[in-house]
Amino acid sequence: MSRTIFYTATTLDGFLADDHHSLDWLLTQPIDEVGPFSYGAFIATIGAIAMGASTYEWVLRHNETSGDPWAYEEPSWVFTHRDLPLAADSVQLTAAPVAEVHAAMTAAADGRDVWVVGGGDLAAQFAEAGLLDEVVVSIAPVTVGSGKPLFPRRFDLELLEVDRNRAFVCARYRVVGPRLPPD
Amino acid sequence: MSRTIFYTATTLDGFLADDHHSLDWLLTQPIDEVGPFSYGAFIATIGAIAMGASTYEWVLRHNETSGDPWAYEEPSWVFTHRDLPLAADSVQLTAAPVAEVHAAMTAAADGRDVWVVGGGDLAAQFAEAGLLDEVVVSIAPVTVGSGKPLFPRRFDLELLEVDRNRAFVCARYRVVGPRLPPD
Repeated sequence: MSRTIFYTATTLDGFLADDHHSLDWLLTQPIDEVGPFSYGAFIATIGAIAMGASTYEWVLRHNETSGDPWAYEEPSWVFTHRDLPLAADSVQLTAAPVAEVHAAMTAAADGRDVWVVGGGDLAAQFAEAGLLDEVVVSIAPVTVGSGKPLFPRRFDLELLEVDRNRAFVCARYRVVGPRLPPD
Repeated sequence: MSRTIFYTATTLDGFLADDHHSLDWLLTQPIDEVGPFSYGAFIATIGAIAMGASTYEWVLRHNETSGDPWAYEEPSWVFTHRDLPLAADSVQLTAAPVAEVHAAMTAAADGRDVWVVGGGDLAAQFAEAGLLDEVVVSIAPVTVGSGKPLFPRRFDLELLEVDRNRAFVCARYRVVGPRLPPD
């Protein structure tokens, strides 16, 4: 049974990127690449990838600057209404509703899990459609005060697992459902 | 040697209170009152308390509704430019700079620690003055999307300790210093 997982790094104050579109707060932290919640162990379980347009454009810019190739072998869907360049044959653009794309992604994943890379708004759209199973965060030891929000919605989660990887607090949550405003 | 500590609960997405000024996201969570990072063990180490005006007014309203008395025996400073009612003889209002008040608080604490209750902006003012030693968070398994921010500044922290208390991820950080924007 394929799970759909929002796996991401975040600042302690709940941002995925700062106002400078920089990930220096993340990439300068010590991490054990084969330790708890490692990317290598995670990506081995993934059969399809979802990404918002801003995240995708960040990756394109990063790869252009660094010379890095597209990092993912898995079939990848980019949610956008624009005509963006395709980074690889495995990438497709979509403007369809998340539920429709999710069905295609799950089929493509063939029993492996679906990774919602980000941003927070796309992850929240999956959750609102009842299609997000888990939120898995690696919390970097920084605050940035403003930037791209982790998950811009009211949701209840259930804590499944806590661990530490060097500078990071790592936590895995089950998505319970929307949290109503108080009476 | 007295430490100054910002000890608080926060949502996973970095808010101390939601837009409804409600703490229902916090008070409905299961917690072990004598478990890791418990309030009881913490408050026993505290000799003086700092609070922002909004936090203080929230406590006053809460106590008025619930009939609860002022909860703190420790001498308490409320940072405000207004003339607010005093909840107890141990409460004083101040409009002085944090550094000046911090000296008085440390003297009053007499070797015990100083607790910055919140909000996030007051904690950040102590940090900017180089007077905040630790940030200690209990992260509730909820997202609220918007509200009062945990720590509205760019700061580097050092992770000292991670634990779990029922629904909460608990983490203790040393405040390293301001984090500069990327080049």
